[in-house]
Amino acid sequence: MSRIGIGLLGCGVVGSGLARNLSRHAEDIASRCGAELEIRKIAVRDISKARAIPQNLSALLTENVSEVIESDEVDIVVELLGGEGVALNAIRQAMKAGKHIVTANKLLLARHGEEIFREAEKCGVEIGIEASVAGAVPVIRTLRESIAGGEVKSVFGIINGTANYILSKMTESNTEFAEALREAQELGYAEADPAFDVEGVDTAHKIAILASLAFGSPVDFDKIYVEGITRLKPEDFSFAGQFGKVIKLLAIARLVDGSLDVRVHPAMIPCGEPLARIDGVTNAVLLEVSHAGSLMLVGAGAGGDETSSAVISDLADIARNIISGSVGRVSPTGFSPEKRKTVPMKPIEEIDNRYYLRFHVEDRPGVLSRMTGILGAHMISVESAIQRNAQKSVVPLVIITHSAEEENIRSAVAEIDDLETTREKTLIIRLENGE
Amino acid sequence: MSRIGIGLLGCGVVGSGLARNLSRHAEDIASRCGAELEIRKIAVRDISKARAIPQNLSALLTENVSEVIESDEVDIVVELLGGEGVALNAIRQAMKAGKHIVTANKLLLARHGEEIFREAEKCGVEIGIEASVAGAVPVIRTLRESIAGGEVKSVFGIINGTANYILSKMTESNTEFAEALREAQELGYAEADPAFDVEGVDTAHKIAILASLAFGSPVDFDKIYVEGITRLKPEDFSFAGQFGKVIKLLAIARLVDGSLDVRVHPAMIPCGEPLARIDGVTNAVLLEVSHAGSLMLVGAGAGGDETSSAVISDLADIARNIISGSVGRVSPTGFSPEKRKTVPMKPIEEIDNRYYLRFHVEDRPGVLSRMTGILGAHMISVESAIQRNAQKSVVPLVIITHSAEEENIRSAVAEIDDLETTREKTLIIRLENGE
Repeated sequence: MSRIGIGLLGCGVVGSGLARNLSRHAEDIASRCGAELEIRKIAVRDISKARAIPQNLSALLTENVSEVIESDEVDIVVELLGGEGVALNAIRQAMKAGKHIVTANKLLLARHGEEIFREAEKCGVEIGIEASVAGAVPVIRTLRESIAGGEVKSVFGIINGTANYILSKMTESNTEFAEALREAQELGYAEADPAFDVEGVDTAHKIAILASLAFGSPVDFDKIYVEGITRLKPEDFSFAGQFGKVIKLLAIARLVDGSLDVRVHPAMIPCGEPLARIDGVTNAVLLEVSHAGSLMLVGAGAGGDETSSAVISDLADIARNIISGSVGRVSPTGFSPEKRKTVPMKPIEEIDNRYYLRFHVEDRPGVLSRMTGILGAHMISVESAIQRNAQKSVVPLVIITHSAEEENIRSAVAEIDDLETTREKTLIIRLENGE
Repeated sequence: MSRIGIGLLGCGVVGSGLARNLSRHAEDIASRCGAELEIRKIAVRDISKARAIPQNLSALLTENVSEVIESDEVDIVVELLGGEGVALNAIRQAMKAGKHIVTANKLLLARHGEEIFREAEKCGVEIGIEASVAGAVPVIRTLRESIAGGEVKSVFGIINGTANYILSKMTESNTEFAEALREAQELGYAEADPAFDVEGVDTAHKIAILASLAFGSPVDFDKIYVEGITRLKPEDFSFAGQFGKVIKLLAIARLVDGSLDVRVHPAMIPCGEPLARIDGVTNAVLLEVSHAGSLMLVGAGAGGDETSSAVISDLADIARNIISGSVGRVSPTGFSPEKRKTVPMKPIEEIDNRYYLRFHVEDRPGVLSRMTGILGAHMISVESAIQRNAQKSVVPLVIITHSAEEENIRSAVAEIDDLETTREKTLIIRLENGE
């Protein structure tokens, strides 16, 4: 049986999970992909650190990334370094050296995916990226390969377990954001510095990758509108409940009038929608495909074992191509390069939506009338308004709008925020149907 | 660009959907798989019948199946005849002629899959079967290719849209089975002869295929326990609601103590479980995979467009292999043939479960005590018992048991059914957690 050499760059949670699972399931993997996958070199930052990897692998550790990449024994380089600079250089170097790549680095793919995909094709190497989005869920393969006979119309995703855990917690138990975050950290679901997760950046990285595959177009990461969940309050969840909705951090990518609408923000979706029911750290991606209808993939989005299972899936795929002599069988983007076109991105200001607006205003006569007057002047019509218990002098006032353009909403809200009766910056949550 | 010839056997709902979509999305498909897919021959039973296919295809119609199979212009034969005899012969003939196969014929695959898979390998041809289970949902590809680094522990599926539509309807609106069925037929969700769907046979065909791929073992179709939904009554749904459960027609395949537990029957599952929330004609498959956790795939299980999208996905896959010279890249079963082993099947009598037992008994003193006495004598302990409104002389009495062996349940129920106070054959519904 053929033997294929793996070089690991990085050996943290995912890397050591990979090492353990490759060893534990060696026979099964060989029987599935027709080759033995052997780890032959492992680059780590600190060789002296204790690691939960099979003992025979300890001899393979080095602190020199190039040693792994350039080794004649390594056919596939698995990049698990994370971050931008070192990882990008390593991948470039490896591709030039004719090594196939598997990477879980969503930041890198979101920012440099296009370059990496083109370079992979030029160098005649494979690039496996299943582990970069939604861990064990085979969404990359589905987009790259399964959807061959239809056009993707939209991608909706809950693809950050940390944020979804926090939102589920806040929905269930009237918890403040800070408390839910603390609990997530205690359970190991959130990192010490949770910014990437709770500010929506990690989600944006992932939707950039999905959109790029779904729509056959590069996605300019810097043009993605990104808003996190840190400003949400328990009252927003209770209002949402009153409207029969839940709040989720949604990643959205849609084709609208020939432009790409890609964004990440908290959204209210009806309780009955499939995505509304994705709770805790689970990830879900909902694809709307012409002629195939709705397709939802749900599973574990993180974790060493789960993410390493996606890496192994890519390794097996590449191994099959090596053995059958069909490297490059599927292009990194799923489309032949010459058919890939740059679809312009639509600024969020031009998107129409329905909105939940939560104001904190002084409870005095005429305030609501003045506010709705401003909304009306900006072409925004009100579907419903709810004012909470008038015992206090400052009350939350919530307005649900009919469909309006984001730009008009922003202008109106800015004007309302300037009123002397407004006591807090207004919170905007977009209403989505999850389809 | 390469051109690959398709021969269609059968041109009903799926076949004409396929013809339309291949033509409508020709450019996209070519750009994704690197070849133009052209229909070159179509065999139908009655050439004079009107068909919703592009006009230029009408000239390709023939009533001679062999003419399609043996045509030099045909590289891939798409078998959409359905049924057993003719279809099996056609596939055998096509493989011998070196033609690749795509089929949606679940009956055939459930009964002859093993032979077909072996023959495909022997003849060096590809066999695409994505359309045979859960329509547009890429569950076959996920089992064959994505799960490379873990063992499947269980497969739970809601994979018959007709049955699920009827059960959803009965859950929602206290409808009798016959009425829900009639409504499904009016909406085109159930066929004039619904037996295959409501008796669980179609579901059994599909779970046989999934189990065979998931566990790397042939599955003896005749050893699958199959029970349909025709005996369910509105009262069962209302009892289920009382217990916080819903009733679904579940397909189950699990590895238990080294044996395969494969069965199809109505099951009560907790409302909060992901599968409990799959309503209407939607299909869902829940895979439990070691090291990858739970993976759920949800989507359209039937329909001409949806099923044809799965056929196109297979065609694209085979086209990529033809072009890159890697036919046979993935074995039809996902495992290398020599690693495929026959795992024995566990008879349902030996399976432990919790049970919902619905008795119709005369409402007189001592009846409950006698019945629980019989259960106790068969080692079955009662978790709860509910007796409905005692106004009538015959009342439904429901017992939920603790875990018990199926064989004991059957003996006890047979004994109870023989009591002169029992007025109707007792209904057994198994309790499952959907995991």
